[in-house]
Amino acid sequence: MGMRGKTMRAFKDELNWCAGEIEKALDYFLPGVQSRQGVVAQAMRYSTLGGGKRVRGVLVMKFCQACGGDPRQGLPFACALEMIHASSLIHDDLPCMDDDCLRRGKPSCHVAFGEANALLAGDALINLAFDVLSSEESVKAVGAENALKAVNLLSRKVGVDGMIGGQVVDLESEGKSIDEETLEYLHRLKTCALIQAAAALGCIAAGASKEKLQLALHYGDALGLAFQIVDDILDVTGDVAQLGKPIGSDSEQEKTTYVTLKGLNGAKADAAQCTQRAREVLDALGLEEGFLYEFTDMLLNRTK
Amino acid sequence: MGMRGKTMRAFKDELNWCAGEIEKALDYFLPGVQSRQGVVAQAMRYSTLGGGKRVRGVLVMKFCQACGGDPRQGLPFACALEMIHASSLIHDDLPCMDDDCLRRGKPSCHVAFGEANALLAGDALINLAFDVLSSEESVKAVGAENALKAVNLLSRKVGVDGMIGGQVVDLESEGKSIDEETLEYLHRLKTCALIQAAAALGCIAAGASKEKLQLALHYGDALGLAFQIVDDILDVTGDVAQLGKPIGSDSEQEKTTYVTLKGLNGAKADAAQCTQRAREVLDALGLEEGFLYEFTDMLLNRTK
Repeated sequence: MGMRGKTMRAFKDELNWCAGEIEKALDYFLPGVQSRQGVVAQAMRYSTLGGGKRVRGVLVMKFCQACGGDPRQGLPFACALEMIHASSLIHDDLPCMDDDCLRRGKPSCHVAFGEANALLAGDALINLAFDVLSSEESVKAVGAENALKAVNLLSRKVGVDGMIGGQVVDLESEGKSIDEETLEYLHRLKTCALIQAAAALGCIAAGASKEKLQLALHYGDALGLAFQIVDDILDVTGDVAQLGKPIGSDSEQEKTTYVTLKGLNGAKADAAQCTQRAREVLDALGLEEGFLYEFTDMLLNRTK
Repeated sequence: MGMRGKTMRAFKDELNWCAGEIEKALDYFLPGVQSRQGVVAQAMRYSTLGGGKRVRGVLVMKFCQACGGDPRQGLPFACALEMIHASSLIHDDLPCMDDDCLRRGKPSCHVAFGEANALLAGDALINLAFDVLSSEESVKAVGAENALKAVNLLSRKVGVDGMIGGQVVDLESEGKSIDEETLEYLHRLKTCALIQAAAALGCIAAGASKEKLQLALHYGDALGLAFQIVDDILDVTGDVAQLGKPIGSDSEQEKTTYVTLKGLNGAKADAAQCTQRAREVLDALGLEEGFLYEFTDMLLNRTK
């Protein structure tokens, strides 16, 4: 990547600072566990705090900053994204979906809290995301009009024409061999939609122009595809201890992936191409160097 | 009930008109089934359209009217409420929850579409509710500020301290004998919260004062409890063909209900008392007669 040691340190410091701010804000917005329904709050906290790369939350903060805002203005939006993401993982892991017992190196939510509580914790996290977007804190940071824009954009990127639609196509494709066009369609919805929402919500938090919002959506599309292709590659080449989830689970489930369709080298070339596309959008946004550039590289070169 | 024939007809006409408007608006806001993820749109439509009493949607429209608005101003909010309600029924019926195979006289969503699609249809309906609240149509009808207020109020009444919290307490109470205070706590969350949200969203749609909003919340609390107690009574005395769900499912699951705690007559007295409390709030709102008064009576005297 050719980064000098100094730049590298600055990048990692910045990344850790963002992740730390997101963690603190999540802790603030998540419900306390002292009520009679405390078990569901525990399940929500278990699946949302203390883990994950915070890709979506970091994108919100840094796009907000790139559009001239204070990155902390984006914190309520960042938390909403992370809550939606956590809810999707909880529901994805349920026995009636992927039936995964391990997530981020620890038992899945339904293994730890039971299926019913996991179902309700996921539902509650979706609701809490919209609670946070429309909260006093959010309105204070970005104004009521931008908060409402965020509600509408996020709900659309999560719904039937977004992430959830992608999960449905994924289910429909199980045990079938699907073509590249269908695979891309499903990942555009399942993975890209929420990453697009992250970049776009950062712009909305800063009150950016429609043109910047459009570029952010393009960036999210390219980065999301690259991210998913790397996921497929890591499912074949990764290390269980680093990944925190079973290796080879895709091929076990006879899933079509970028690797099964195009081979390891073909998938790697695709990931590089998508990353290049993401970089070009950053160039168009006038961000030829700096955090988002390094972040994009980091996601392509990750090993977990 | 002592209503003259003429009043009765006017009431029923009005109720049918509201339900018809809600049905049309739901059809408009629900996604089409032509996409590759069309099966989840089908499941959403199956569980949201063509059934139910539309108690929540009607309350939105009539509280909006009672606060000086056009009842149709409340339609986007009414649809959001009905979508949240439908999603809660879909998830409640899942095998890991109540495991009910019958709903509104037809197979439950997961029986008709499979568990995974039912799970995702419920998730998508929650998201769609917030999409609709923040939609162009909603902003045009009530303004951006009121739309954002509606998002925040609804998300709170659905979340951990609302409906979902009540479902959790309900689960925790299964197979245990609980006291009246706990039963009331759980129904205040599980049932009343969403009915409160309906009345309150009607006020917000009309831009009503904080005082009216507070009265609407009190009304929803009283009506919701009455509604739940009548549900418990009908589970013992009802008719399967009228109810569209199995009779005696509460006692089969050894659930504590108002009837098991206080006997049939005690439960009936409680329901009448709650209804009286709801009526007093309507009086305080200056609605001593008219639709909401009759509606409240109808819900207490229903047989299904």
